[in-house]
Amino acid sequence: MGIFTKDIKSMDDLFVHTLKDIYYAENQIVKSLPDMIEKASDAKLKQGLQAHLGESKGHVQRLEQVFKLHGVKAEGVDCPAIDGILEEADELAGDVDDKQVLDAAIIAAAQAVEHYEMTRYGTLVAWAKQLGRNDCAKLLAQNLDEEKAADAKLTKLAESGINAKAA
Amino acid sequence: MGIFTKDIKSMDDLFVHTLKDIYYAENQIVKSLPDMIEKASDAKLKQGLQAHLGESKGHVQRLEQVFKLHGVKAEGVDCPAIDGILEEADELAGDVDDKQVLDAAIIAAAQAVEHYEMTRYGTLVAWAKQLGRNDCAKLLAQNLDEEKAADAKLTKLAESGINAKAA
Repeated sequence: MGIFTKDIKSMDDLFVHTLKDIYYAENQIVKSLPDMIEKASDAKLKQGLQAHLGESKGHVQRLEQVFKLHGVKAEGVDCPAIDGILEEADELAGDVDDKQVLDAAIIAAAQAVEHYEMTRYGTLVAWAKQLGRNDCAKLLAQNLDEEKAADAKLTKLAESGINAKAA
Repeated sequence: MGIFTKDIKSMDDLFVHTLKDIYYAENQIVKSLPDMIEKASDAKLKQGLQAHLGESKGHVQRLEQVFKLHGVKAEGVDCPAIDGILEEADELAGDVDDKQVLDAAIIAAAQAVEHYEMTRYGTLVAWAKQLGRNDCAKLLAQNLDEEKAADAKLTKLAESGINAKAA
């Protein structure tokens, strides 16, 4: 998050910095997904990731609405967590010999990304409510719900044949 | 995960490398939790993190059983994801001025850790079953269930007063 500087004096500061953290993360995800899509072999996996790329672009826009509602400039902060998660996912881009094993690995990498987003949105929804920002909480909850649905779809894809083909 | 080298030729290779990833992660978490516990102010939060430290040590032992059952040496591999997540959490150790805001931030950081573990264990349970290793899947599912329970406890703690005090 890169947030724990002396600038964090109130819950509102913490909320805004965490918003910047997930804003950075969503933007990095939008940049990384096309590579994952290119490397995937299974048609349904490619389609699923493509659909999630569209959703992720929508999440960025929804976050910009939250920044606006809360009266702060939309900007990112460094987030070592998503950088690390994507660094792992990126290593996918290269070197698994077997395409079907690579599909299983891509699903695992994408689910790690979803889980990071789920935890941050879960936190942000709770904090927004606590700060009396139900308007922001509603938008953040929409992103959270889409991340949960994307994660569930990936589990279904894995279990409906991709893991079996890989094994 | 540091796993995507040319060494990954089969689903079994992918399973073993991901096992090494979470083994490294659990060991790093065991090293990091005492600092989080020290920085927390709320007594129930301290107790909860202390209890999870005990559980995490148990997870390391359970993973060692999984390695043994699967006939491979227990060892870690570099995992940029957990390093990044803990780097964020570590920045906690310093500089939030307000102790109650810090407690809310510690919960968020701990939940990001839980979510990383949940996604890796979820994947490993599915892969172990696919590989016919129900014995390994059972142990991994025990770790998964404890991570989910720890995450739910943190949500409850946040909602039962820590967020309100921080705000």
